[in-house]
Amino acid sequence: MQKQELVKRLQSFLLPDAVLFDLEDLKPYESDGLTAYQQTPMIVVIPETEPQVQQVLQLCYETGVPVVARGAGTGLSGGALPLGDGILLSMARFKKILHVDPLARIARLQPGVRNLAISEAVASHGLYYAPDPSSQIACTIGGNVAENSGGVHCLKYGLTVHNILRLRVLTMDGDVLEIGSEGLDSAGYDLLALMTGSEGMLGIITEITVKLLPKPERAQVVMAAFDDVGKAGEAVGDIIAAGIIPAGLEMMDRLAIKAAEDFVHAGYPLDAEAILLCELDGANEEVSEEIQRVHDILLKSGAISLRTAVDDAERLKFWAGRKAAFPAVGRISPDYYCMDGTIPRKQLSRVLTTIQALSEEYQLGVANVFHAGDGNLHPLILYDANKPGELARTEEFGGKILELCVEVGGTITGEHGVGFEKINQMCSQFKPKELILFHNIKYAWDEKTLLNPGKAVPTLHRCAEFGAMHVHHGQIKFPELPRF
Amino acid sequence: MQKQELVKRLQSFLLPDAVLFDLEDLKPYESDGLTAYQQTPMIVVIPETEPQVQQVLQLCYETGVPVVARGAGTGLSGGALPLGDGILLSMARFKKILHVDPLARIARLQPGVRNLAISEAVASHGLYYAPDPSSQIACTIGGNVAENSGGVHCLKYGLTVHNILRLRVLTMDGDVLEIGSEGLDSAGYDLLALMTGSEGMLGIITEITVKLLPKPERAQVVMAAFDDVGKAGEAVGDIIAAGIIPAGLEMMDRLAIKAAEDFVHAGYPLDAEAILLCELDGANEEVSEEIQRVHDILLKSGAISLRTAVDDAERLKFWAGRKAAFPAVGRISPDYYCMDGTIPRKQLSRVLTTIQALSEEYQLGVANVFHAGDGNLHPLILYDANKPGELARTEEFGGKILELCVEVGGTITGEHGVGFEKINQMCSQFKPKELILFHNIKYAWDEKTLLNPGKAVPTLHRCAEFGAMHVHHGQIKFPELPRF
Repeated sequence: MQKQELVKRLQSFLLPDAVLFDLEDLKPYESDGLTAYQQTPMIVVIPETEPQVQQVLQLCYETGVPVVARGAGTGLSGGALPLGDGILLSMARFKKILHVDPLARIARLQPGVRNLAISEAVASHGLYYAPDPSSQIACTIGGNVAENSGGVHCLKYGLTVHNILRLRVLTMDGDVLEIGSEGLDSAGYDLLALMTGSEGMLGIITEITVKLLPKPERAQVVMAAFDDVGKAGEAVGDIIAAGIIPAGLEMMDRLAIKAAEDFVHAGYPLDAEAILLCELDGANEEVSEEIQRVHDILLKSGAISLRTAVDDAERLKFWAGRKAAFPAVGRISPDYYCMDGTIPRKQLSRVLTTIQALSEEYQLGVANVFHAGDGNLHPLILYDANKPGELARTEEFGGKILELCVEVGGTITGEHGVGFEKINQMCSQFKPKELILFHNIKYAWDEKTLLNPGKAVPTLHRCAEFGAMHVHHGQIKFPELPRF
Repeated sequence: MQKQELVKRLQSFLLPDAVLFDLEDLKPYESDGLTAYQQTPMIVVIPETEPQVQQVLQLCYETGVPVVARGAGTGLSGGALPLGDGILLSMARFKKILHVDPLARIARLQPGVRNLAISEAVASHGLYYAPDPSSQIACTIGGNVAENSGGVHCLKYGLTVHNILRLRVLTMDGDVLEIGSEGLDSAGYDLLALMTGSEGMLGIITEITVKLLPKPERAQVVMAAFDDVGKAGEAVGDIIAAGIIPAGLEMMDRLAIKAAEDFVHAGYPLDAEAILLCELDGANEEVSEEIQRVHDILLKSGAISLRTAVDDAERLKFWAGRKAAFPAVGRISPDYYCMDGTIPRKQLSRVLTTIQALSEEYQLGVANVFHAGDGNLHPLILYDANKPGELARTEEFGGKILELCVEVGGTITGEHGVGFEKINQMCSQFKPKELILFHNIKYAWDEKTLLNPGKAVPTLHRCAEFGAMHVHHGQIKFPELPRF
């Protein structure tokens, strides 16, 4: 169908300002948080009711037009990168908090509600929503579900998938599914987990029921400085091995420390090779006891200095540095490339050392700032897009880091998703049979493959071109084609 | 293929004692823990290596013979009920603990390892495996994954799905999949959660990597007696609303208390209408503080008496009564039917009261003993199979209870799975479109539908016959047929 006719049909059930088609209006939607990739969508729609979304989907289903859903557009892997011949479906107007039940400790939300707005809305009941991505001021709960987002506190409180109970989902042909329950378990296959992190490829979420947690009585943070990155990595393992589950356990290396300190004056020690921020929360006495134990462990692990925040203001200052680390690095380098991989904790030292070596090999600086407790790395590769060849070198370096994550038993994504960015690395992570299974599962939901096609799961053909059929255990098996 | 020829081909790669085909040898496999349903399988195989399982599957794939996997056969929903024209695949010989890493706190296991054997094997490291179904002495980790088993402690520590990291899985055509990672997150759709609780319908598990937890410093239990079941239900909500997450929060009513007390002399108050057992665990001081808070809450909620176990021996005695409740009820009634449904916690009072009314209507006694903290009910309907009509009345009563669970926003299964038992109730729980999606997902893994066919997900035809197309919101839509 021609763009013009499609616009006309969309305008028949959407308000005029909910259908964008002029180049100028489409511009802001060309990319998400991963601005390295850009594509102007054919049309942007911004519906505000579920029946409107249903009609958009039915129209696209009928006419074979692909649909890319978008929340706040803060994603860092290009999951919401539009298609030139597709519709970009913005869920930005689904902002209602539909219901809060403080006794059952749940809230039912539209997908466009901002992550932080949930906690703000339930604060008066002494409750909060635990997963807290760095972008929590802006990012939406719908996008969080689509990417299975984490955050500083997911070590103790889990990822998005562990903090949601129910979803209301539209299939590509416009049918309504109700997934999950307010009970602990659901019958049938676990569609709730399957939808979570599916990057807009299986269905469009229109409602989300989240779990709320009681705000802990007290939270306290310890900052430890190390003269060696490897030692800091070991200390992380030591804390966990002692049976302590910190609310957050974050690591920053020299470059990240300096950038953050220059930017927000958090009080970080500039002579350290690495710092750890370890937050404990819970009942008052429990926190006191654990702080003491963490102190002892950190000293034994070789920390050269320790500081416990004297009050909540200082605690927040310590975290402000961590949360501002990305923009801070943006001030010291014209461009940076934020990676996201997860490794078994015990491999931290080895992986950090190898990244250091790769940094020298590629002649590109790296700032490390990451969720150490759960082994979720965020190396930021510093480069200058204006220098010929630097972007290509950066991408190659980044690919090497992700392959290293797979090699040590980890995965190519922590909390940012695969999106468009890491689709080639999926060829390293998975065998052909596993990729076929992914395609089959997509087909089970969306048999015309109209929902966010080309993201997250590479075709076998793509993997062959990428040259990554040298997968697990050298099994170079190129099986029968998938069914589409 | 004829049975005789199949036996011959199986014997070509399996040891003689690993292929059973005489009626007498097949007898013990006729049912699992739900003995109400029985079916003699065509052949039983008991392989002991992964390549052997692979060969069994390839042979069945090639010849179109269905396969039902079985662990210890302790399941309570008939998930391992054999097929008369199928092979029963026993994983009982996969008993090896392959690897324990106390630092990373993980263990890699074969599926036939008993649940309790895991905790025993890692006890010397001060670790344990958290999910603890009542059958934990006998049930296997493979079966636990297949059913997403819970247990007394899953309120605090989660279900099986929250306690596993990786699976090694064979597809029906004999390919190997590696699912999950030792990191916190995995790329691609969440196949780990999808496999967990899939009741042997997607693949055959050959290895499982589980998380281990440090044993808490101290565990303590409070027993509260109530003169009213509804008040006990309210007390559960009050404890949770106070922000306390007990390690276990169990409830028993008069009939269950009496049966258990007569059987194991746990010290239960025989004059109570209901008791709650509330276990707190963690650091020493934390437990002391929480015990005090729980005391206060229980008194405020109307408990008529409170007892805190004086030592660990008494704590275990309190639990022994709870864990022996099922066999204890077996002593006071010729037969009982164990139900399993989950409801939002706040509906506890209402549902218990309605079950009481139904009990009078159907003239059948009910003993309630269940995981109150997570709203996972286990009403035991008492009946006598020798009295004409009682079994049928019992099944109808049971069905009513499950429909009630759905009606109040819960689900028809907690931790026991759907299996063969609750397949009709799936028609009440799900809309046709949702059932089609389940079928499509199965098809994505097992396109010949040879793995445990006829379990867990009803065909639409079956639902129509059951008369349960009067599903959610009265949408009586009978859509296009599923693709198989």
